[in-house]
Amino acid sequence: MADFAIGIDIGGTNTKFGVVDRHGNILEQDRVLTNEHETVQEFIDDLHAKLTPMIEKVGGPSKFTGIGIGAPNGNYYTGNIEYAANLKWRGIIPLAKMVSEKFGLKVKLTNDANAAAVGEMMYGCAKGMKHFITITLGTGVGSGIVIDGKIVLGHDGFAGELGHTVIRHGGRLHKGTGLRGSLESYASATGVRETALELLSANPQTESLLRDYTINDLITSQTVYECAIKGDKIANDIFEFTGQILGEALANFVMFSSPEAIILFGGLTKAGDLIMNPTRQAMEDSLIQVFKNKVKLMYSELKEADAAILGASALVWEE
Amino acid sequence: MADFAIGIDIGGTNTKFGVVDRHGNILEQDRVLTNEHETVQEFIDDLHAKLTPMIEKVGGPSKFTGIGIGAPNGNYYTGNIEYAANLKWRGIIPLAKMVSEKFGLKVKLTNDANAAAVGEMMYGCAKGMKHFITITLGTGVGSGIVIDGKIVLGHDGFAGELGHTVIRHGGRLHKGTGLRGSLESYASATGVRETALELLSANPQTESLLRDYTINDLITSQTVYECAIKGDKIANDIFEFTGQILGEALANFVMFSSPEAIILFGGLTKAGDLIMNPTRQAMEDSLIQVFKNKVKLMYSELKEADAAILGASALVWEE
Repeated sequence: MADFAIGIDIGGTNTKFGVVDRHGNILEQDRVLTNEHETVQEFIDDLHAKLTPMIEKVGGPSKFTGIGIGAPNGNYYTGNIEYAANLKWRGIIPLAKMVSEKFGLKVKLTNDANAAAVGEMMYGCAKGMKHFITITLGTGVGSGIVIDGKIVLGHDGFAGELGHTVIRHGGRLHKGTGLRGSLESYASATGVRETALELLSANPQTESLLRDYTINDLITSQTVYECAIKGDKIANDIFEFTGQILGEALANFVMFSSPEAIILFGGLTKAGDLIMNPTRQAMEDSLIQVFKNKVKLMYSELKEADAAILGASALVWEE
Repeated sequence: MADFAIGIDIGGTNTKFGVVDRHGNILEQDRVLTNEHETVQEFIDDLHAKLTPMIEKVGGPSKFTGIGIGAPNGNYYTGNIEYAANLKWRGIIPLAKMVSEKFGLKVKLTNDANAAAVGEMMYGCAKGMKHFITITLGTGVGSGIVIDGKIVLGHDGFAGELGHTVIRHGGRLHKGTGLRGSLESYASATGVRETALELLSANPQTESLLRDYTINDLITSQTVYECAIKGDKIANDIFEFTGQILGEALANFVMFSSPEAIILFGGLTKAGDLIMNPTRQAMEDSLIQVFKNKVKLMYSELKEADAAILGASALVWEE
């Protein structure tokens, strides 16, 4: 039985990679800039050059079960990255095949949100669970759905786009998709910022620490959090509003797949109970009886810095 | 290999049952009133008395793979009917076990909406599909979700309650659940009727054939349909409105599980293109690019009179 897996997380800016053992310890890790290479092959060659000493250090390729890759628009079925808006590479890139040929190892690829879910199942708080959903509240809202212990991929590999489900008919415009009222337009970092600006402008008479941050355009979910814990009313209202919408969306997801748990991850979760409490309340209020007080709503326990590599590496342990 | 299965569909009023072959032919069928027996055991004894000659007629129990039962609040994992509001039997009824003991055959039980989905997969237009969703637009809105060729049951067996997902925040009150704006409060027979009354009352100056039906409280989705095909504006608006909401909800479901097809079934589908066209339009408008023009939206081809028995019987072929 192999002892190690390689995890590669391809982000819009950085590609992180590392050697991971079965217990989720990252033994070696490094990163490269994703878009600094002319071609995909050069990118892969660079990864290979950097990973080879790491692989040798723990005993060589025979100690490895394979390579897992999380990438935007990564398709598990095909092993391709397909039309990723944030990457320099255009069109359809057969990345899994190319990496496998270079390394001589089995390669599994999926999108980053699905990789996060597999990471939770293998190393995180979903260990032992067969039915759960992970929601990443970051720049966007990503999701990974696990049913019967398997990631839901759908007939084409693109399932699990819960951030784009509409939760407020005719609501806020999402500039990327053109949809109105989707979860991502509220529960992402961008969404929280927009809610802040809306509430400040709708309540011109209400004093708020946040007004200082508007001058140099410094409102982020982090600054909202800092103001909220100081008791700022508008900052607290922002989390109440965001949690309300998120909780309603989670209730819809529960009525779809009846998961044992929903695991939240990403920048917004740093707001702790300020976002968790209204989210849980709204979720429970929006469920029919049979689902009430059953679903564990929790924060991921994985370190954000490690989670991407762990999730990617977990893809090859999965079977 | 066994040639036949028994399908039993337990409804609020009638329990239908029959002998079905692998091709979906119902060779024998009959029905009993669901609530006319004092006890569950008497109900089962009655079913046994009526089914025994049917079983013998095609060669006896050895020719049968088992018995499938569709029932309100039927739980596949436990084989129990749990707290079904429309049935006389209270609490938790271990129906699968009781029926199996009486007949000496394997018994599988699930709720009626899941049975409908299995029926489509075995005998209907989902034959050969691994990823699809069935939506029953009847008195209520039921749903059965199939992923990787298996019914989605969730961690407790209660998954697939898509009729209760909220699609209009703060919208119409659903008297049964207390939720506001759920799909069922619009896209069910009751919902269509309520929409009709709302639109008639909101447009007092608009002539409508439907006004004649209000006198004796005769507005149903059927009468709305009859007026709509005669060109009645309000009747057509009712289907437009219903289709808009249904289509938006379907888009949310697509972004969850990325099915190959969504199959609509039940009374409302008799309105044909009047409901299909706005539904399809709204669904496509509410999808992100990667899902557009991919999902087959279709009507079930199973006869409504047969579908319940077929769906139930299909449960035992499933494996």
